[in-house]
Amino acid sequence: MKEQFYQYICTLQDEITQKLETLEPTVRFREDLWERPEGGGGRTRVIEQGKVFEKGGVNISAVHGELPESMQAYFGVKDAQFYACGLSLVLHPKNPMAPTVHANWRYFELYDSTGQIADQWFGGGLDLTPYYLFEEDAKHFHQVCKETCDRHDPHFYSQYKKRCDEYFWNSHRNEARGLGGLFFDYLKKGEKTMDQWYSFVTDVGSNFLNAYFPILNKRKDLPYTDAQREWQEIRRGRYVEFNLVHDKGTLFGLKTNGRIESILMSLPPQVQWVYDHTPAQGSEEEKLIQVLQHPKDWMAAVE
Amino acid sequence: MKEQFYQYICTLQDEITQKLETLEPTVRFREDLWERPEGGGGRTRVIEQGKVFEKGGVNISAVHGELPESMQAYFGVKDAQFYACGLSLVLHPKNPMAPTVHANWRYFELYDSTGQIADQWFGGGLDLTPYYLFEEDAKHFHQVCKETCDRHDPHFYSQYKKRCDEYFWNSHRNEARGLGGLFFDYLKKGEKTMDQWYSFVTDVGSNFLNAYFPILNKRKDLPYTDAQREWQEIRRGRYVEFNLVHDKGTLFGLKTNGRIESILMSLPPQVQWVYDHTPAQGSEEEKLIQVLQHPKDWMAAVE
Repeated sequence: MKEQFYQYICTLQDEITQKLETLEPTVRFREDLWERPEGGGGRTRVIEQGKVFEKGGVNISAVHGELPESMQAYFGVKDAQFYACGLSLVLHPKNPMAPTVHANWRYFELYDSTGQIADQWFGGGLDLTPYYLFEEDAKHFHQVCKETCDRHDPHFYSQYKKRCDEYFWNSHRNEARGLGGLFFDYLKKGEKTMDQWYSFVTDVGSNFLNAYFPILNKRKDLPYTDAQREWQEIRRGRYVEFNLVHDKGTLFGLKTNGRIESILMSLPPQVQWVYDHTPAQGSEEEKLIQVLQHPKDWMAAVE
Repeated sequence: MKEQFYQYICTLQDEITQKLETLEPTVRFREDLWERPEGGGGRTRVIEQGKVFEKGGVNISAVHGELPESMQAYFGVKDAQFYACGLSLVLHPKNPMAPTVHANWRYFELYDSTGQIADQWFGGGLDLTPYYLFEEDAKHFHQVCKETCDRHDPHFYSQYKKRCDEYFWNSHRNEARGLGGLFFDYLKKGEKTMDQWYSFVTDVGSNFLNAYFPILNKRKDLPYTDAQREWQEIRRGRYVEFNLVHDKGTLFGLKTNGRIESILMSLPPQVQWVYDHTPAQGSEEEKLIQVLQHPKDWMAAVE
């Protein structure tokens, strides 16, 4: 399973970066190969200062060895060997009308003292963070999420949509980071077989471009004002706050000696913090905040 | 003691904001009074988009009531009443040659079930975060810290300088947030009386302007390039990382329903994250990094 999934994310990284580059006239992804001293490594691909992509990363990694101490308590095991691989991506378009997107698909194995697999699971998801609300974009994104889920189980979409809204909650701001999508973790043998989970997780991965690409393509060249750009930078501040204060993956990486630059490539390129910024009543900016404070069921939403 | 210290920080807030405004030709501090639903409140003073101060806050607060649950575990007590007051300030000058500064002085009381003081202590400090290294500034800042400490105890400076270097350590970057200063906490009756601690902490507070004002005054109008400004914004990213990932005060505030805008006024106004940014060998930028990675004893330093 681990070879199979690792091959899958390698191919998916190629597919995603190649497709994204078709939208970008001025720059290309640069690649950094890195090794983890304790075992394994990764292939980080970053794009910066493009016409479409102000900053983005599409990274894969596969690491293994002794389970770090900080993870032992987290998983409730001691002195175990582990293997983990995954693809993580974050794209920050330059145009404030185009949403930021994040996605991640990962696989984890824990071994017993004889080297046999003691536990294994998949996790991941994808979520959309716009600066201006286009309801049709939200619906399209969730529609792709739902169709993908429905091919595997009729309960998945509502279940993983809800977990996404719960996970990406900026509790100190009392608002969601974005419009959600899917979030799942600890997909283990039981309800489904590992092969069925593999099929589900890779289906979600392979539909990422279907979910995001058309939205980006539609919004990347829309006109915008300096004030709209400023709003985007202020909202990006909330993105930073979520990632550094609440996101388990980021904190985990920072506290377990992960590759800092690959972890923090998720942070937006230009960000502002303005004291007590409040959008005008009835403005487009306020409409976004309303939806973030009250996450919607985009598949049931009636205009 | 609590009335006395609260009066002190009220007066100090006036003194500091008035003095800082003498350097600022274009804008003034604006004041927000706020109340804490569970008891107490604060007076936040923020300055933004000035010629000298790109963003800054000089805030006081005095809060009381039931000790929040999250603090109970932290202090190892249950269902206690508490009182806490303090002054917190962060100043982000616009000019990259002028350093950011942070300072805080606070007083805490815990009560037993009969309403008697069960425990009481002072905490605080001040520290300097430059974007370009002027050794004379570092020495001046530490000199004022040392002279103030020495008036109270010959061991204080080395002790609290060391704690400052330890506390403001951005462990995931393996570098200090800045050039340090003083950091102290849990100054309780024992080694000194509470009156002696009061005298020490207020002496540090009253010497803040002596430590910082001359530096700001000297650097605020120096010429700088776009590249130097960009470096400042990138370094501000490290400041954000420290405050959101490591700073106990910030995290504590965010997780105990503090006044978010007063807590996060510490975040810089304009910030950049650039993937894998590394200053050129031998550059001024690299010189700063060297000092941040290897905190110096500024009082012993020989050029």
